[in-house]
Amino acid sequence: MTPRESGGPPDGLPVRVAMDGLPARVRIYEVGPRDGLQNEAAAVPVRVKAEFIRRLAGAGLTTVEATSFVHPRWVPQLADAEQLYPELAPLAASGVRLPVLVPNERGLDRALALGAREFAVFASATESFARANLNRTVAQSLAMFAPVIRTAAEAGATRVRGYVSMCFGDPWEGPVATADVVRVGVRLLELGCTELSLGDTIGVATPGQVAALLDAFGRAGVAPGRLAVHFHDTYGQALANTLTALRHGVTTVDASAGGLGGCPFARSATGNLATEDLLWMLHGLGIETGVELSALAATSRWMAGQLGRPSPSRTVRALTGD
Amino acid sequence: MTPRESGGPPDGLPVRVAMDGLPARVRIYEVGPRDGLQNEAAAVPVRVKAEFIRRLAGAGLTTVEATSFVHPRWVPQLADAEQLYPELAPLAASGVRLPVLVPNERGLDRALALGAREFAVFASATESFARANLNRTVAQSLAMFAPVIRTAAEAGATRVRGYVSMCFGDPWEGPVATADVVRVGVRLLELGCTELSLGDTIGVATPGQVAALLDAFGRAGVAPGRLAVHFHDTYGQALANTLTALRHGVTTVDASAGGLGGCPFARSATGNLATEDLLWMLHGLGIETGVELSALAATSRWMAGQLGRPSPSRTVRALTGD
Repeated sequence: MTPRESGGPPDGLPVRVAMDGLPARVRIYEVGPRDGLQNEAAAVPVRVKAEFIRRLAGAGLTTVEATSFVHPRWVPQLADAEQLYPELAPLAASGVRLPVLVPNERGLDRALALGAREFAVFASATESFARANLNRTVAQSLAMFAPVIRTAAEAGATRVRGYVSMCFGDPWEGPVATADVVRVGVRLLELGCTELSLGDTIGVATPGQVAALLDAFGRAGVAPGRLAVHFHDTYGQALANTLTALRHGVTTVDASAGGLGGCPFARSATGNLATEDLLWMLHGLGIETGVELSALAATSRWMAGQLGRPSPSRTVRALTGD
Repeated sequence: MTPRESGGPPDGLPVRVAMDGLPARVRIYEVGPRDGLQNEAAAVPVRVKAEFIRRLAGAGLTTVEATSFVHPRWVPQLADAEQLYPELAPLAASGVRLPVLVPNERGLDRALALGAREFAVFASATESFARANLNRTVAQSLAMFAPVIRTAAEAGATRVRGYVSMCFGDPWEGPVATADVVRVGVRLLELGCTELSLGDTIGVATPGQVAALLDAFGRAGVAPGRLAVHFHDTYGQALANTLTALRHGVTTVDASAGGLGGCPFARSATGNLATEDLLWMLHGLGIETGVELSALAATSRWMAGQLGRPSPSRTVRALTGD
């Protein structure tokens, strides 16, 4: 007998042992192509992005946020949205959900013209980040989103997601009041959003904060089925926070294949929770996801090769030897 | 207003929000100087090791496993135990606990001669690893430990820890039966061990496995106060597993400053849970540890400089800019 060179389990999968109080199934909302690649310094060619998204869907991911129809000046990495989205038409036709971020009515119009029918808007829980990211107050940004969400619904969009960023901490303001997050989230739902994604944009949250915020949404009448969690792994807390959210009834988890979303070896390492690290835990807990871990890890390894640096995902490195 | 360059909270500390069902205080059992450095390819000079341990204690860690009195042939990285341990006499005199690993009676004699009074033995839950690591069956290794534990107690040792490795998975055997782990652990306690450390040596465990093993020890009459958990972050699961153990009443957690314990950029990345990532979670949860995070992160950054590569701890990188 000799051990596998990686030291991992022979089949490359975790042992399955369920735990009480967790959902039977989790939907992974893959954000790598948008939230991940928008932070890459180097431009990624359209054909590589399209191939990446096709491979993600091939691994079993049913929801992949494809790009953002933001003005190219603000996010040059995603300036190719008009070229990319049509490439994905066969995927969309096969039933893969490919939501796109739209910052305003002009972005929505561009996306609608290309046939997109699932959208996301990006709000902030804090005034500082609203000003920095949108050059508006929180109230002004919500007013800007109102017609976007309404027009999307009128155009036949069945789902419009509302991101709430800086839910747990803000680099300018420090701690963020739970009441502020709930107020912005509830307002987005009132405006017509069908789901909220609660973002720990700077990755500082710990499980007690997560539990407290989810409890506060519950008191405000928002069921956990309408909430997704979106953690960054800046301080290594993303998976413990996710476990806490699952215990509170959340069944939609945002993650980024390979942990894309920030250089892991530099200051401001703000990578998203890696989809593979999440999958290792979910599969170990016997929670269904429909995603094949080995195919996803191979995809992330391929993408790491395209980007020229190793994946920050520990599971990708353990499984693929990077 | 401008954000801190790191994007983190202005004071470098997490917001504190407690969560039900967790202990008020956790003892961190720091394993970096032993479990971490024994995996370093390059030899670390004795003076650097001594300085490392002094700095760890200076940051508030009260238990630091200092070295191993194993035969130098097997672990050349720790062949300097005889030189290192006397350097630490002032620390020990000041009340810092400095347990040392002893593989057999000969190692114990060497450690006792230098004045060590707190020890650990290292057993395996699986036959394959017992054979690979100790060249013995599990039963033979336990028989070897019996006189070590007895002699240590007779010499005045108040604490003898029993490590149980491969508690959740084994690279040769795959899944490990809970009953096997409990049998080895209970036997170590019968032989006189005062504490067990349950090791996920290859880092594959997920929270359901952790909960199941701790429940099984409970059914065997072992209180969680006699158990420590020892997670490796190979698949990114260590902190989620730790949170699960805390919910099951465990209050002693093994961790390695800076995540020492395996090259993070190579195959078989088997680093320990980083003490700083653990501290971020514990402090965020309002759990007392007595450890100052900023001083510890600075220590790990210094040690990373000595080793010539960045720390794999996400919290260290976020706080120190590596």
